[in-house]
Amino acid sequence: MIVLFTDFGAHDIYLAQVKAVLVQQAPRGTSIQDLLHTAPSFNARAGAHLLAALQAWFPAGSVFMAVVDPGVGGARDAIVLEADEKTYVGPDNGLLSVVAARAGRAHTWRILWRAQDQSASFHGRDVFAPIAASIAAGNLAKERLEHTPALSVRFGADDLAEIIYVDHYGNALTGLRAGRVPLTAKVEVAGRRLDYARVFSEASSGSAFWYENSVRLVEIAVNGASAAQLMELRVGDSVAVVP
Amino acid sequence: MIVLFTDFGAHDIYLAQVKAVLVQQAPRGTSIQDLLHTAPSFNARAGAHLLAALQAWFPAGSVFMAVVDPGVGGARDAIVLEADEKTYVGPDNGLLSVVAARAGRAHTWRILWRAQDQSASFHGRDVFAPIAASIAAGNLAKERLEHTPALSVRFGADDLAEIIYVDHYGNALTGLRAGRVPLTAKVEVAGRRLDYARVFSEASSGSAFWYENSVRLVEIAVNGASAAQLMELRVGDSVAVVP
Amino acid sequence: MIVLFTDFGAHDIYLAQVKAVLVQQAPRGTSIQDLLHTAPSFNARAGAHLLAALQAWFPAGSVFMAVVDPGVGGARDAIVLEADEKTYVGPDNGLLSVVAARAGRAHTWRILWRAQDQSASFHGRDVFAPIAASIAAGNLAKERLEHTPALSVRFGADDLAEIIYVDHYGNALTGLRAGRVPLTAKVEVAGRRLDYARVFSEASSGSAFWYENSVRLVEIAVNGASAAQLMELRVGDSVAVVP
Repeated sequence: MIVLFTDFGAHDIYLAQVKAVLVQQAPRGTSIQDLLHTAPSFNARAGAHLLAALQAWFPAGSVFMAVVDPGVGGARDAIVLEADEKTYVGPDNGLLSVVAARAGRAHTWRILWRAQDQSASFHGRDVFAPIAASIAAGNLAKERLEHTPALSVRFGADDLAEIIYVDHYGNALTGLRAGRVPLTAKVEVAGRRLDYARVFSEASSGSAFWYENSVRLVEIAVNGASAAQLMELRVGDSVAVVP
Repeated sequence: MIVLFTDFGAHDIYLAQVKAVLVQQAPRGTSIQDLLHTAPSFNARAGAHLLAALQAWFPAGSVFMAVVDPGVGGARDAIVLEADEKTYVGPDNGLLSVVAARAGRAHTWRILWRAQDQSASFHGRDVFAPIAASIAAGNLAKERLEHTPALSVRFGADDLAEIIYVDHYGNALTGLRAGRVPLTAKVEVAGRRLDYARVFSEASSGSAFWYENSVRLVEIAVNGASAAQLMELRVGDSVAVVP
Repeated sequence: MIVLFTDFGAHDIYLAQVKAVLVQQAPRGTSIQDLLHTAPSFNARAGAHLLAALQAWFPAGSVFMAVVDPGVGGARDAIVLEADEKTYVGPDNGLLSVVAARAGRAHTWRILWRAQDQSASFHGRDVFAPIAASIAAGNLAKERLEHTPALSVRFGADDLAEIIYVDHYGNALTGLRAGRVPLTAKVEVAGRRLDYARVFSEASSGSAFWYENSVRLVEIAVNGASAAQLMELRVGDSVAVVP
């Protein structure tokens, strides 16, 4: 399975060009999944924490192509990361670094290979997709990579006490793993202290709460309304756990 | 073919998690189709009428996973419906009830099975997708279901004289089946009485009309513009047929 | 590979109906790619130039179903175009005419076939998809087509000095092929004269520039912001090359 996590837009002209490469170069029948194409374009840190939470729901052997890459065409490296039986391809701008830091076992390589005639601005199509397809096919030539002891940009393994994503319901995901927050704690955001609720239907209608969401992060929500709209939340806003 | 009809959002983090389950558990090569992921989140009745119209365009043997489920994690049951050679999986909140009521032959079951570690808020991934995959594979264990004589929430077989969906062109679909409305009738909506036109290019530019749309519902449209914007139409607005 | 280029909307009720036809009628395992579903609905000329640039990134043998079709149900013909080892199916309203005019070798046919019970408004599902599937399967019956020496609506092979698409980053693609514009030239748009930059990270932050984009068109962009928003650009706006 090849899993795409990008800021290419879900309904734009870029994805099909990437997929045409994958379909032609990956093994016949490889499943290609659109995990997210609206990752925040200029916030590799939020994307890194979101990817770290989401990857758990995909099977061992998955190949992730993760591209949020405002520095494309500049000096940043392109990398391959192997972490706990999954492989990741993307820019060395921190986006893969939370997965790497939390993995039991991680190896990293710089991509040396350059495509003939590769565009300056679309390495998703011209570099990352061919590499991801080769990995899925099990035929990535060794000389296309160079082992590197560590990523250049590293955000570390710690949780991020910020909003990292707002979903289309208006729920605000944080970079806090819920298993580390006691259910008796309050979560402070936008000047308010929110109590825990197990599920939407257990919160009173219209009131804000926090809960452990389906990818095991602390999430800010309102029963029957958009938390992001009501509290004017956006990616990058700070949150705090108050015992 | 597995057909997805949800309010999960077309470009959010939820769909790929559902599809990862389906790809792993359904028979290799099963086609997975995104019918709609922007069904109105809090209007199971509109969704039920829309699904009843749309399902006709998918082949016998299709398995529909239909999830508009604000009560997830609460007391509502999860159900399987067999209706006229197609199967439907979803919450027992009325969403499947119009299909059931209009079917020549329908059988319903409550889903007893619970996944280990299932999330409180994402039964699409943790309950409905594994059940849909098992049905597509023809290996759903009998003990996971319990036959039930009827759904708990039933909207009935009758047409719904309301707007049930507004498409991206701004056309407003109603819950009225066009075969039951004479072409000489007018359709009243937002204080206006609209005449029939066969097709957009037969209506004068900028004028509102009703027509039999491609899924055989009465639809309100304007040639060359957004009917929803011009007449401020939204899901739930009443319509009336005037002879 | 079947490639879809339409204005059906990326998250609406139409695409899955088209794909259900393709999945049932095209050869098992045929890849179906969503190239674009937000093509401008009332601008076949812009769509024609965009399609002509994008098709180059798909392999020989691809079958394109291209539908921007405000005249559906009226008098316009439906056509099949073979151009340089790729095939295109769509309305005869100019949308395929730039591909045809630029091809080394092109042949065109009118589609005579009509589906039983075909809808007046959704030829994508009822006409173009079955024809595209037959072409992909290599079994399109000759009597369904009639050779025609030329398309009815022809926009010609020349470049179009207009904005033809605004992507989700706010970058504005023009109908100018970059290979024909010297890097020393300025591009004039919205009353401003823009210099060339090779890549975003080589333009100063917040400043507008033009560059050769990844499909080899002249594109207007701003490093770190939306060019379309900052300069109020939209599809159809004129651009000029100033030596």
